[in-house]
Amino acid sequence: MLTLDKIYKASHVLKEVLHPTQCIRAAKINPEADIYLKPENLQITGSFKVRGAYYKISQLSDEEKKHGVIACSAGNHAQGVALAAQRSGIKAVICLPDGAPISKVEATRSYGAEICLVPGVYDDAYSKALQLRDEKNYTFIHPFDDENVIAGQGTIGLELLEEMGDIDAVIVPVGGGGLISGVAFALKSLKPDIKVYGVQAKGAASMVESLREDKILCLDSVSTIADGIQVKEPGENTFKYCKEYVDEVVTVSEDEISSAILALIEQHKLISEGAGAVAVAAAMFNKVPVKGKKVVCLVSGGNIDVTILSRVIKRGLLKSGRSDTLAIQLEDKPGQLKGVSQILADLGGNVVSIHHERASEDSDITDCILRIVLETRNFEHINEIRAALTQAGFNIVNR
Amino acid sequence: MLTLDKIYKASHVLKEVLHPTQCIRAAKINPEADIYLKPENLQITGSFKVRGAYYKISQLSDEEKKHGVIACSAGNHAQGVALAAQRSGIKAVICLPDGAPISKVEATRSYGAEICLVPGVYDDAYSKALQLRDEKNYTFIHPFDDENVIAGQGTIGLELLEEMGDIDAVIVPVGGGGLISGVAFALKSLKPDIKVYGVQAKGAASMVESLREDKILCLDSVSTIADGIQVKEPGENTFKYCKEYVDEVVTVSEDEISSAILALIEQHKLISEGAGAVAVAAAMFNKVPVKGKKVVCLVSGGNIDVTILSRVIKRGLLKSGRSDTLAIQLEDKPGQLKGVSQILADLGGNVVSIHHERASEDSDITDCILRIVLETRNFEHINEIRAALTQAGFNIVNR
Repeated sequence: MLTLDKIYKASHVLKEVLHPTQCIRAAKINPEADIYLKPENLQITGSFKVRGAYYKISQLSDEEKKHGVIACSAGNHAQGVALAAQRSGIKAVICLPDGAPISKVEATRSYGAEICLVPGVYDDAYSKALQLRDEKNYTFIHPFDDENVIAGQGTIGLELLEEMGDIDAVIVPVGGGGLISGVAFALKSLKPDIKVYGVQAKGAASMVESLREDKILCLDSVSTIADGIQVKEPGENTFKYCKEYVDEVVTVSEDEISSAILALIEQHKLISEGAGAVAVAAAMFNKVPVKGKKVVCLVSGGNIDVTILSRVIKRGLLKSGRSDTLAIQLEDKPGQLKGVSQILADLGGNVVSIHHERASEDSDITDCILRIVLETRNFEHINEIRAALTQAGFNIVNR
Repeated sequence: MLTLDKIYKASHVLKEVLHPTQCIRAAKINPEADIYLKPENLQITGSFKVRGAYYKISQLSDEEKKHGVIACSAGNHAQGVALAAQRSGIKAVICLPDGAPISKVEATRSYGAEICLVPGVYDDAYSKALQLRDEKNYTFIHPFDDENVIAGQGTIGLELLEEMGDIDAVIVPVGGGGLISGVAFALKSLKPDIKVYGVQAKGAASMVESLREDKILCLDSVSTIADGIQVKEPGENTFKYCKEYVDEVVTVSEDEISSAILALIEQHKLISEGAGAVAVAAAMFNKVPVKGKKVVCLVSGGNIDVTILSRVIKRGLLKSGRSDTLAIQLEDKPGQLKGVSQILADLGGNVVSIHHERASEDSDITDCILRIVLETRNFEHINEIRAALTQAGFNIVNR
């Protein structure tokens, strides 16, 4: 049974390991609301997951600690369990599918865990973890559906009340539901007027669907850039707590997530992973009622692969009118580039790159395509530039 | 005259505008030292510059405030002055060269400043600012060579002592020298045992050169990714304070700066601009004695253009062995790609992108080049992959 006492106890136990993550004012995320960020991306291991893992491990018996723990994860849970075990002086084995990104494997290994790469996908790694648990008497640390793990995550709720008792609402990322279960239980037990909203990615809306059908559903497939909340099925406990304590769970699109990641980078100099940014996306795009309210968005983690980060930045710039790619069909004769350049310079479009290529096989052999990546101010600026080029007789062949 | 009293006063005045920037433990930056970050990239406006600007403006006479202020900057100083003026309810005009990045212009405008885009380079914008000052009776806010601006920056020194009185050293980015002058003055006045080190980019080492020659030098040209500290000439005051209070000023290379930006992203989820990362680079690459010491690296700002950020990430991955580009000469016949793919898969190199192109004009017409971008673990991993491909008879044509 989850109780407030357990969460208070977890809060006490966690003092020895946590980094402070004081809320940050985020005035520009939504100008009609008073938004704050709880930056758990700055937490040790780069996400809140260490809270649940550390508290869970602290509550094991000496016998259990002697055998060690096992977990299955390619992400934040793996790093949380690894660090928690290292600090507690016990053995940790982490099973991962063998296609897991190198950066995440290395980060987990750096906290001293034994890595077990399993051929196949997540489910294969999961089966292997259960098999090893049975063979070696390891304790399996579930990523979310465990009362002590939930109690650990719930400590964020206590911290929010301590830092800012007068908040109207909290927005929380939802994958399996461990984080929001703990936070909602703590907040609703102590201050029931505070609204608690959950956010999932559209491509992995298992909790949203399950709540709608009023039973736990297992989705056939899930796909989102927010890999930290890409979960097919809520837990039994977390489903129950979400039903009872959460006001609403909404979804955000991939482009909304990318825009939120970009906003956190540009406005707050914070790196968030996809899952970490969904609460901010919900506030930015008014998915829950924030107007005139004092609202905390939980930025749950920052462990994003840097190669994915580059792609997200590009996408975010495109979707906010800050970048445009022009493909212009040119006759293969001198002076053409100069004409285009003049118009771009006059209108203040910064050229990021230029690529000159032969047109496709079915077009006239003398034609070529000039592909220009531009930095722009906004969508009006893009339209202005495109109109000027068209008016000057240039043929823009994309969009 | 700079005095401790002025810095204390600045600290009091600044309370109404500053965001807290508590030091963050940074265990992995240099495993042989006990490193902390002072994250002024999380400061309001994204850099420490608001401290000096706000305090300077607070000390103007009512008559001066009535006329308003002017500054010349394309960067953090512009945003600092704009916000400080907005909060103080006075007019601010910011002169920028017309080639300034759109993102920086828009950020400055968003704080309510009047923007004056001047054709040409920085020096032209500077002349224009002085001209406008004389015409309109604006007060010119110097970016560094001003006692009150220096006193404002010095408040960081007081905060460091308050947060962690037992530090051995502080590492500070140096451009014109305003930040380090204030911080060094405060620290050496109160606790002379604390070492204060400055860091410049190799491509803009004006303070280093001036200290070496024992006179203020103006460099002919400066060039670095760390545009925030790309300054040709130290100020008279700042040169004097650096000579008196700073233990040493060292330099870091562009690649070292890129690696530091990447380390801050991956290990600490913090966005730093080039100038903001030079102190971290100095600690990472042992440019100053940090072994066994408790050291604070000042992360001075985070206002980096996201397009530059993408390039820095790529460069940082390359320079740390985390990415490699292979150009392999293939005969234009079936099955070749499969052979390469097999070797990469066996050795655990993640393929990020593949590009297949015709070779250059002077090579055999049937040849083509396979260009593969790989995610790798480290340099040994890269060597292993390259050796295996070579041994299997593939001709790697780059590096």
